[in-house]
This record gives sequence, C-alpha cells and structure tokens, in this order.
Amino acid sequence: MDIFQKCLEYTEARDAIKQGFYPYFIPLNENEGTEVMYKGQRLIMCGSNNYLGLTTHPKVKEAAKTAIDRYGTSCTGSRFLNGTLAMHEQLEHELAEWVGMESTLVFSTGMQTNLGTVSALVGRDDIVILDKDDHASIVDGARLGYGKIERYRHNDLEHLERVLKSLPAESGKILVMDGLFSMEGDLADLPEIVPLAKKYGARVMVDDAHGMGVLGKGHGTVAHFGLTDQVDLIMSTFSKSFASLGGFIAGKEEVIDYIKHHARSMIFSASIPPSNTASALAALQVMREEPERIQRVNDIGLKMCEGYKSLGFDIGRSVTPVVPIIIGDDMKTFLFWKALFENGVFVNPVISPAVAPGHQLMRTSYMASHTDEQLDKVLETFGRVGKELGII
Amino acid sequence: MDIFQKCLEYTEARDAIKQGFYPYFIPLNENEGTEVMYKGQRLIMCGSNNYLGLTTHPKVKEAAKTAIDRYGTSCTGSRFLNGTLAMHEQLEHELAEWVGMESTLVFSTGMQTNLGTVSALVGRDDIVILDKDDHASIVDGARLGYGKIERYRHNDLEHLERVLKSLPAESGKILVMDGLFSMEGDLADLPEIVPLAKKYGARVMVDDAHGMGVLGKGHGTVAHFGLTDQVDLIMSTFSKSFASLGGFIAGKEEVIDYIKHHARSMIFSASIPPSNTASALAALQVMREEPERIQRVNDIGLKMCEGYKSLGFDIGRSVTPVVPIIIGDDMKTFLFWKALFENGVFVNPVISPAVAPGHQLMRTSYMASHTDEQLDKVLETFGRVGKELGII
Repeated sequence: MDIFQKCLEYTEARDAIKQGFYPYFIPLNENEGTEVMYKGQRLIMCGSNNYLGLTTHPKVKEAAKTAIDRYGTSCTGSRFLNGTLAMHEQLEHELAEWVGMESTLVFSTGMQTNLGTVSALVGRDDIVILDKDDHASIVDGARLGYGKIERYRHNDLEHLERVLKSLPAESGKILVMDGLFSMEGDLADLPEIVPLAKKYGARVMVDDAHGMGVLGKGHGTVAHFGLTDQVDLIMSTFSKSFASLGGFIAGKEEVIDYIKHHARSMIFSASIPPSNTASALAALQVMREEPERIQRVNDIGLKMCEGYKSLGFDIGRSVTPVVPIIIGDDMKTFLFWKALFENGVFVNPVISPAVAPGHQLMRTSYMASHTDEQLDKVLETFGRVGKELGII
Repeated sequence: MDIFQKCLEYTEARDAIKQGFYPYFIPLNENEGTEVMYKGQRLIMCGSNNYLGLTTHPKVKEAAKTAIDRYGTSCTGSRFLNGTLAMHEQLEHELAEWVGMESTLVFSTGMQTNLGTVSALVGRDDIVILDKDDHASIVDGARLGYGKIERYRHNDLEHLERVLKSLPAESGKILVMDGLFSMEGDLADLPEIVPLAKKYGARVMVDDAHGMGVLGKGHGTVAHFGLTDQVDLIMSTFSKSFASLGGFIAGKEEVIDYIKHHARSMIFSASIPPSNTASALAALQVMREEPERIQRVNDIGLKMCEGYKSLGFDIGRSVTPVVPIIIGDDMKTFLFWKALFENGVFVNPVISPAVAPGHQLMRTSYMASHTDEQLDKVLETFGRVGKELGII
C-alpha cells in the first residue's frame, strides 16, 4: 500500500471549494485589524484573537521595526545555542512580574510552549489529566510525554474527582486545562478545580492563551479568580493579546529551569525572532499604559453576549469576548457562514471534531479597537441573516 | 510523589553556571551577523545558521518592516481560520518554483513543519523509517503519528535495506532523513537511498533545513544530487538561509493538500507573522539576485574544512559550511569551548545525547558574509588554543 493513497483519496476540501462552501485558508489582501479585504470586498473581522487590537498599534509596530534594525530579521539558531538575546530575558522578567510568578521561559510559538512544557514534565511514571475540551497543543504535548493520559468531561468536577480518586497515590500528577476555552468562551472552574487537585496531590497548569490580556485586568484567568499563588504553572501565547507569535510558561524558578533544559521544542527549534520579541514586549507595555483597552474589550464582550441573546441566539456559557453562536448542524453552519461573509462579516465556522456533534458553532471574537458602529452592524447582520436562514 | 520532584533534583545547569562552564542560553546584546557582543566582549560568530548572512541584508530588513507597516505585527490566528494573507500564498508559489515541486505549504516554524507533516502522513497501519541522526522534530513528528517507527544506523545502506526488507509489504512506508545533517555537516546518501526506497515501495521525505540556500546552487541537497523528480517531499526551514522563522513542505499537490487539512501544527497554531513571511520572501529574492553569496558560503566551507584538517583537527565527514571539530570527551569539549569564547570565537559545544558518545564536538558553521580576516582569525585561534589544551 502506498502511504500517499490516503492523500489521493482525500477530496473533501476540493469538493467544498467547487461547491462554494470552503471557509478555510481565506487569503486576505489587507488587514487593518478590525477590517480586512478579500478580493476587493471589505469585511468586519470578528474572527481574530487580536483582543486588544495591538497588531496595528503604533508603539508595537515601531518596536518591531526598531528590533529589526538593531538585531536583524532572525536569530537563526536555538535559544539554547546562539539564538538568545538579552531582549528575550528582558521579556521573561517582565512577563514574570505581569503574571506574578517567580520565573518564565519564552518559546517561539504557543504550540511549542505546550508541547515542550507538558512533554518535559510528564515522565514515565507520571499522569497528566486533561479537560476533554483542552487545546490540541496540550493533547499533543501530553502524547509526546512518556506518562499516562487521563481525561475528564469538560469542566465536570464530579467526573474529575472520580478520575483523580482512581489514580495511584504514588504517581506524579498534573492537571492541565485552558483558562478561557477558545471555542466556547467559557472559563475553567478553577475555584473548584484547584482545591480538588491539592486534595489528590496533583499540580495545576493553566493554558491562558485567550484569557491573558483580557481577564483579571489583563493578568489573566488565574488572576481573575485570585488564584495566582495556588496555581503551579501559567502558560500563554503571544499570538492573541500580545500581537505577535510565541508563548511563555511561568512558574517557580526550579520548575522553569527544568523545562528550559528538557523541553525539546525549546532546545531543537530556532528562537523567537527579534521583531516578534519586541512586539510582545511593546504589547505588554501598552497593557500597562492603556488599561482602558482591557476594559473596552470586556465591555464589548458583554455587549455582544447580550446582543446575541436578545436576538434569540444560543451563545452557550460564554462570559467573555469569545462568543460562540451555537448552530448544532454542519450544513447550517456553513450556510450561515457564507451568508455572513457575503454580507461583510468575517467569522469562523467550527464543526466536529473541533467541537462535539450538536455543538457546531460560529466562533465570534472581538477586539478593543472595534467601534460601536462596527459591532452594531455585526449584530444587525447576524439578526437579519439568522432570520432568513431560520436559525433564530 | 510530586511530579515536580524531578525539577527540584535537577541541578546540573545551576552547577555548571557556578563552575563557569555553562555554554547555553548566552544572552547576546548585539548581533551584526558575523560578530556579536556579550557583556562588552566582541566575538566572531561561528555558531549560527545564518548561512547566507541575510538577517542583516538591507532588502530583507526593509521587506520585513514594510510588511509590519502594511499588515501589522501578527495575524493573530491560524492559517486555517483568520490568519492567511495573500502574501503567504505568494511565498508558497515562489518556494514551489525554487525547489521544483508542484506545491508547498508554509508553517510557523520548521519544527512544526516536521511535526505536522510526519504525523499527518503516518497513520495507524503505516511505518516511518528514520536515520538515527535525524533531527528531533522528525522524531517527535513520528511519535505524534499513530504508525510504527523504525530506525537505521546513520547513512548505513546495508542496515537500511535490512530494515526495509523486514517490513510487511502491505504497509504504507515513508523514509524521512536530514539532507545535510546539522551536527556533523555530512550529506544523506540520497543517490543510494532513493533507489532502495523505490525497491521497497517507500516514499522519501528529505528535511533540508541546512542544505536549502547552500547546496545545489541554493536549491538544496536534493537538487545537488539531481534527484528532484525522484524525491517525494522536501522540507526546509526559514531560520537558516531564509533569515526568518518558519518552514515549508513541498511535494505533489494532492499530498500537500492532505497535509494542509490534517497537520495539527498548521490548523491549531497561529500563522507565520507578516514580517517573518516577508523576510523569507525577500531572502528568496536575494538568493536569485545574488548567487555569488551561495558560492561564497560554499567556498568558505571548503576553506575551513581544509584549514582545520591542516591544523590536525578531526572534522569527520563534513563537506559543507557546517564543520564539526570532533573532540570525543565532554570535559575537553567544554574546556575548549570556554577558551575559544574567552579568545573571541563563538561556537557551540555538542555533547551526548545530541551526538553519540565519542563524537562530542565543537559545531562550527559559516556565513557568506564572513570576511577572510575573520576566518583566518578563527583558524589561528583554534590552532593556538587547540595546542594549548592538547587537542591537536
């Protein structure tokens, strides 16, 4: 059997393109943050993770360009070998202070942060316990570790306790979950999860890719719950509120030092380039200087949650600027996506297996830089198109 | 048992720092390409993968800065969803032409290119066959796949054939190996490997992270051997000759399309930022416009191989601008590294498990932008310090 046989047989994407219902890999010509251009059509972007709108902030752009002038476009090597700049360490110091942890370590992508951290910590006799809705990078990090993987139903405390109770007391254990779940915009029930973890001797790591910069006055989901001194590791990425690409893990000094010297995705991958490092540093600076942006994106989240609900949409359990519109059917989701796109609104259709069957949804997400006019137009379009298609 | 116990017990790095023999994560203050600054000390950089010296090329820097002005500092989303720019597709078209393949797909890092590609292709009934010296990202990609992993001794054709012969005929098979091996600078024996793979029905994927931009007039190791129409997939990164961060996989259209829709490191990771994309595009343009740079780095490789050999160093099987100085002992390697560093030469010490015991080495690598004066000073320093330490 040819290993490429599966490729020749895979026609789903090409078929969808032919039928005009292909919503992925859409090549944008312009991206001003809240508005984008596709083949001459202007769309309001409600499908980005640019929560604070900082990718086009003058200070962030300037910092990135200055770093290119000073250090060039790449470090062309691993942090471990020739690819560390003093700027990387500065970013690590500032992030540690921002999240309230002893130490942090910066990786080239958020995905590599999870891959490296989880696989380094979960050794042969250890157990990693995951929420079933955890991000793919956590799952893959667990698979790259040599320990055992256990899962509990999304945010289900009872199930989690049953799982924890069933595990051998002598095994090392770590619970890893998203802080703000990326697809449905709900939060990990940390005030319940953390004491449960302690009861069964499990460490807790929170992936706060979507919560950092947004919740807890920007300090993240763990800070939002007042649990910074109770959680062992906080992870986040730079490709959301930090207007860059990269990620970091924060925790106690010894733990971060261990990860630094054992994470394969750190040691065997080129370091985060000067411009990406500088963008993240500048974004952090803007978070300190312009807290009103953090307030604004939260206000927008509330406005949109309320707006969709009063239109009759099912927004699940969202309490954040990530607002799912739950449709519950593949074809309806694609039809709705296409009509919204044609009416000038860019959102992301999400079908199984990315969400459970019955939870097919339109993922919408907002930026501090969205204007009220844009948001009202989005709600009006959703209402009009949703009625036309019989979704509300 | 606390899962963090291993972290508390890990003191190797801290001990090495105390003893003054810690050669990793050195924070550089300046990086002009061929020379770097560390705490006020200027060093000649012979430990970078900036083979064509393009990280500081005016056209590359300008392109990166223009992209920031036009698109901002990040796409804040996956290529799959909101993170694709027309520029990403332009880069893919130009790379396909450059490597002579039908289609390519660009990822955010080289590591993620291998993780996503190998894991997507190697399904439950498939077998992936690796050279024992393959890069960590290939190994981890294979581990994330659900198939079986087999290994053959580095470039050992006889062993490879024994392995291939032992595998069930009905399984899908793919051979994955580095083109230019990153630590020892030798080449995969593709003229022998490719016919062997065909004989046993295995596809061939070459990771040309280090050969692309250097060998085959810049078109890579596969082109160097004249095997472009015989190899199934060519992978490379942007963090070496392309002066950026990222990677790509090239092959037949159907295979790339399959990878595009199945590689988790593509779908669940933020896209390569505008500046990194533009740097890679500009570097490719410079490769076309300034072929003398490609010639120059190869000439330098030869000069340095000859230089080290005539000084009496063991450079293994290198025939490229990656030149290992084989020491064969951990402590001697660190002592040599420290003395070279103090004498103004930056190189990378490599000990087991990164290389086999007895192969501990000083990895040196060169750039088209190195001057003859710099190179002569490096050789002189190696000769002088090597004699002092009894290595030659």
